[in-house]
Amino acid sequence: MTKKPETVVIRRITPSLDNARFALKRTVGGGITVEADIFKEGHDEVAALLKWRRAGEKAWNETPMRPMQNDRWTATLCVMSEGAWEYTVEAWGDVFFSWQHELEKKFAAGLRELQSEILEGAAFIEAAAGRAGETSDGEALRKSGAAMRVADAEQAHDLAHDHSLCALMRVYADRSLATVAEPYHPVWVDRERAAFAAWYEFFPRSAEGNADSGSTFRQCLSRIDDAKAMGFDVIYFPPIHPIGTSNRKGRNNSLKCEPGEPGVPYAIGNNKQGVNGGGHKDVAPELGTLEDFDWLVTEIHKRGMEIALDFAINCSPDHPYVHAHPEWFFKRPDGSIKYAENPPKKYEDVYPLNFHNANWRELWDELRDVILFWCEHGVGIFRVDNPHTKPVAFWEWVIAEVKAQFPGTVFLSEAFTRPKMMHELAKLGFTQSYTYFTWRNTKQELADYLTELTTPPMRDFFRANFFANTPDILPEYLQHGGRPAFLIRAVLAAMTVPVYGIYSGFELCENAPVPGKEEYIDSEKYQFKSRDWNAPGNIKDYITRLNHIRRDNRALREYDNLRLHTAENDQILCFSKSTAALDNLIVVVVTVDPWNPQSAFVHLPIELFGIGADDEYVMEDLLTGEKFHWRGARNFIALDPQNRPAHVFRVRRAIGRELGEVVFA
Amino acid sequence: MTKKPETVVIRRITPSLDNARFALKRTVGGGITVEADIFKEGHDEVAALLKWRRAGEKAWNETPMRPMQNDRWTATLCVMSEGAWEYTVEAWGDVFFSWQHELEKKFAAGLRELQSEILEGAAFIEAAAGRAGETSDGEALRKSGAAMRVADAEQAHDLAHDHSLCALMRVYADRSLATVAEPYHPVWVDRERAAFAAWYEFFPRSAEGNADSGSTFRQCLSRIDDAKAMGFDVIYFPPIHPIGTSNRKGRNNSLKCEPGEPGVPYAIGNNKQGVNGGGHKDVAPELGTLEDFDWLVTEIHKRGMEIALDFAINCSPDHPYVHAHPEWFFKRPDGSIKYAENPPKKYEDVYPLNFHNANWRELWDELRDVILFWCEHGVGIFRVDNPHTKPVAFWEWVIAEVKAQFPGTVFLSEAFTRPKMMHELAKLGFTQSYTYFTWRNTKQELADYLTELTTPPMRDFFRANFFANTPDILPEYLQHGGRPAFLIRAVLAAMTVPVYGIYSGFELCENAPVPGKEEYIDSEKYQFKSRDWNAPGNIKDYITRLNHIRRDNRALREYDNLRLHTAENDQILCFSKSTAALDNLIVVVVTVDPWNPQSAFVHLPIELFGIGADDEYVMEDLLTGEKFHWRGARNFIALDPQNRPAHVFRVRRAIGRELGEVVFA
Repeated sequence: MTKKPETVVIRRITPSLDNARFALKRTVGGGITVEADIFKEGHDEVAALLKWRRAGEKAWNETPMRPMQNDRWTATLCVMSEGAWEYTVEAWGDVFFSWQHELEKKFAAGLRELQSEILEGAAFIEAAAGRAGETSDGEALRKSGAAMRVADAEQAHDLAHDHSLCALMRVYADRSLATVAEPYHPVWVDRERAAFAAWYEFFPRSAEGNADSGSTFRQCLSRIDDAKAMGFDVIYFPPIHPIGTSNRKGRNNSLKCEPGEPGVPYAIGNNKQGVNGGGHKDVAPELGTLEDFDWLVTEIHKRGMEIALDFAINCSPDHPYVHAHPEWFFKRPDGSIKYAENPPKKYEDVYPLNFHNANWRELWDELRDVILFWCEHGVGIFRVDNPHTKPVAFWEWVIAEVKAQFPGTVFLSEAFTRPKMMHELAKLGFTQSYTYFTWRNTKQELADYLTELTTPPMRDFFRANFFANTPDILPEYLQHGGRPAFLIRAVLAAMTVPVYGIYSGFELCENAPVPGKEEYIDSEKYQFKSRDWNAPGNIKDYITRLNHIRRDNRALREYDNLRLHTAENDQILCFSKSTAALDNLIVVVVTVDPWNPQSAFVHLPIELFGIGADDEYVMEDLLTGEKFHWRGARNFIALDPQNRPAHVFRVRRAIGRELGEVVFA
Repeated sequence: MTKKPETVVIRRITPSLDNARFALKRTVGGGITVEADIFKEGHDEVAALLKWRRAGEKAWNETPMRPMQNDRWTATLCVMSEGAWEYTVEAWGDVFFSWQHELEKKFAAGLRELQSEILEGAAFIEAAAGRAGETSDGEALRKSGAAMRVADAEQAHDLAHDHSLCALMRVYADRSLATVAEPYHPVWVDRERAAFAAWYEFFPRSAEGNADSGSTFRQCLSRIDDAKAMGFDVIYFPPIHPIGTSNRKGRNNSLKCEPGEPGVPYAIGNNKQGVNGGGHKDVAPELGTLEDFDWLVTEIHKRGMEIALDFAINCSPDHPYVHAHPEWFFKRPDGSIKYAENPPKKYEDVYPLNFHNANWRELWDELRDVILFWCEHGVGIFRVDNPHTKPVAFWEWVIAEVKAQFPGTVFLSEAFTRPKMMHELAKLGFTQSYTYFTWRNTKQELADYLTELTTPPMRDFFRANFFANTPDILPEYLQHGGRPAFLIRAVLAAMTVPVYGIYSGFELCENAPVPGKEEYIDSEKYQFKSRDWNAPGNIKDYITRLNHIRRDNRALREYDNLRLHTAENDQILCFSKSTAALDNLIVVVVTVDPWNPQSAFVHLPIELFGIGADDEYVMEDLLTGEKFHWRGARNFIALDPQNRPAHVFRVRRAIGRELGEVVFA
């Protein structure tokens, strides 16, 4: 035995992601309630601290842990700034409080010959005085030590339990044999918009809605102002880079591209145009210049909004990398570069990169530099396309590299049907993740999925971003459910989780599919698109109200405060979200049936809400302004998908009386 | 990014104890079914191996893992010798099988222009030939590579699926980018008696059962032969060391010791006698000499049995350490050594050791040397007294030190009411653990406890040793239930788990308590004890039959094969234990009511037993030799605590017909 043995066993620290391999996610001001098994041999009194600090700092914040039962202890910490933090647990057998405990038992048993015990206690206090040094605490401890040394049994018993002395003995405890748990548990603390935001996605070339020509960055402002008016705060653009012309796809993904067709923004790279280099650090000339982009970013920031860019690691055959770094790509036996395939389908407009090529370090550095380039141009959010087709080791590395320079950067991971890969990406550093929300439509599906997302372990590493539609996904529910379906899905996306988004056209209830598929017909991925952004039947007002409700109610900014409640109808979902202090308490009742009126008795846990069994309380519908006076746990609601697909209630409890009338919060 | 990035994600390897911090327990020939989440980016075919080896060896055993669902993989390993082993998982994206898979898809889609693909495949095969070198495998691969290089599409498709080629391509796969999971998972492999044994505990001084004098080692043989005749194979002695005289306790733990009283064997150390040094490496002179002990150990070994000694780290005030190493003990302010206390109780006959004293390394080394001393005298099993009052770090260290020299050493941990400490001790190296079995008496208590012990995670680190009584514990159930209670508890202890024991006197149904306590009156811990080892009413025959049944039925040697079955009576417990191959299948039906006859219909999962719904099968009662012909899942049994407290059935299935009669296995 060469190193100093551990004196206390500390095990099963929670929360913990893969034994501290990955960082928990929190936002500034967030808390973590930590628990651990803590015990040692014998009958010593154990003392334990929860310790946490910004990574790289030397000093720890500390707070005492308290025992619960069966050797399980707990305490709560709070992370106060953006960036990397860490926490751990320290524990030791406390000689003073063990002594106090034994003295108490002897005293209670009537023993009064305690001279030896008293001298022991005095020595413990004097040692603490030594640790406190020449401070007022040290002075107070020296006085107590001297008093103990000459005390009789009664005096010693009183002094041993003196509150001031005990407080000082906790602060200046003998921690020379303390055990500190390793490894430390990492935490990543994001700014608030990483965890609370409403996203609006549009193709900049579609900003004006012209059928035969594309818009430029300079023509995007009205679309952005419209999004702002609806209450969105993140504008998300699909790729804005030069689009390849080799094997360019035509409308509806056809292999044949007619002259004048704009191409797919995901086929990135075109150095034939001779402008800007033509790669991932450039903007498509048809959208404008980099200066135009900078101007647009500034305009977005002026409006209190942010821009999110797509990070799609796809190279068209015309990408400058193809000539500068042919070794970064996969080769065929004849030496030519392999295009992407999903046999028998061929994607001849895209060349995949080989992340393990001999020159991989240069490739990885270059891709990091692409992200850093856009960070320097004011982009703080990246939506990452198909992250599951690139090595997870790359993502862990590149996200850490970017956050080292721009800690506020947000990465949103695209979703795909491999849940474990999605979890891994979320753990290794992606800030947010797309989800299976678009395919969760029944009450049971939604209840199960919301529970999985908002409870451990997922709540600690996976931040769902509920997009109601995307350029790739027009769910059957929206295809068949008409306008009511759009209202319902908007309520569900906006009210259940703090980050959600829509892809433009959702507010217009666009729902024409490629027949038999969950895809848009005439998708603007492949063509210019004509649109009236204020077309009749749009639900812009409804979305606007939802976003304002989100802004005004702090309960909707939290992720894991979602609680499901009984509604006596399989088509009606009822849930609440509340602040811990219950001062903002939202109850949502929403139908999932876009065709028929539905009604139900709903059951609220009013005792948890701080409402007495016989108390009257007011349910204020924040969508309509109506106020309903309820009493008891079980109350009736009726919903109509056409006009009232949901209630979004703020619960107002009685807080007193004025002029004989009950006043509600 | 400086080090080579991992190419495959390997997570959540199971079984795993605290993220590979502790070793799983197995015995020689035992298996471990390992699972892991294994996945990588993209659409490559993943290959994975389970790898294991003796710790310290360089080469791994390897077996392919197979995918189950949702990226979960599995394989089973087998540990073939005693000592430390380790396992891990290796995985890689397999270029050849990814190529084969893509070729298959293209071929199935009717594509036949596959020249480029064929050349790629040839290159993969040639590379494997290079790895195989100048071997017959290499030669075969070179031939296949050459054939592939000139193949047409049909031929290439056939060759790509050729079984011999595919087998070789698995063996000589390109693992240059493989990922190996870390940390490796440790396994400790014990000899069989560590996991299958029947213990018999007696105080050597009580061997002859004289009321007024103690027996010696030389007088222990008849007791040992009696235990052997009953079918026990481990003889366990409480401490055999010199007993202190200072503050020696008298009968029934009285503070006053009369002249001639023998003292408590747990108050270890007496150098006043001037014989043998008087400490933990010595035997009490009243038992004989070290040579006598060696003779006894040899006699025990001759009988195919083993001896277990108590390892009790207690020092009487007369222990040689007190003078040689006063710094190893706790001191009072006046410089005197502190005795043990549990206020207001004082244990003035015992001095606790301070494991963190300034000279702790010498203390720890000395205690290790005590164990090694007895190992060298033929002791392979140690029952450890009060391990929870010594640092867990000490136990982890000392057990590892001893096993490094004597890997077959068995350590049995005493139990106490801190479950997490018990689990920790089991994880850090204790081979077996006492349990709460003595306080689990109702059907529900037994069912719950047996389930907890024999399922993950406990089954992988905690080996229960079911002692039915101990010198410290005479459970109320035995006090009040009379002889039937002893029969019932013998069945439960011997049949549920592979390691069990009794403390002598159990077979005589001794059950006189200290009034109001679960302790023996006139305990031989404190005095000589008169006994007729063949007293009327003894249950030696019944115990003998149980031990023979244990020996003859391999299903009873396994730990986690226990399965509970429905009995339609709250007083009747029904369970089975079976080998995996179902060739040894035991069903036990036992009453827990020592007072009244009980009967029940019991339900057996006959389909899991390989018995058809209408098949006749024979239930052979191994206690009585009776054979019952049953049919179907639900059958009736009747038990009588006086005469038939249990059935121990061997299930015999029909295996054929002979002369028109059904023959049973």
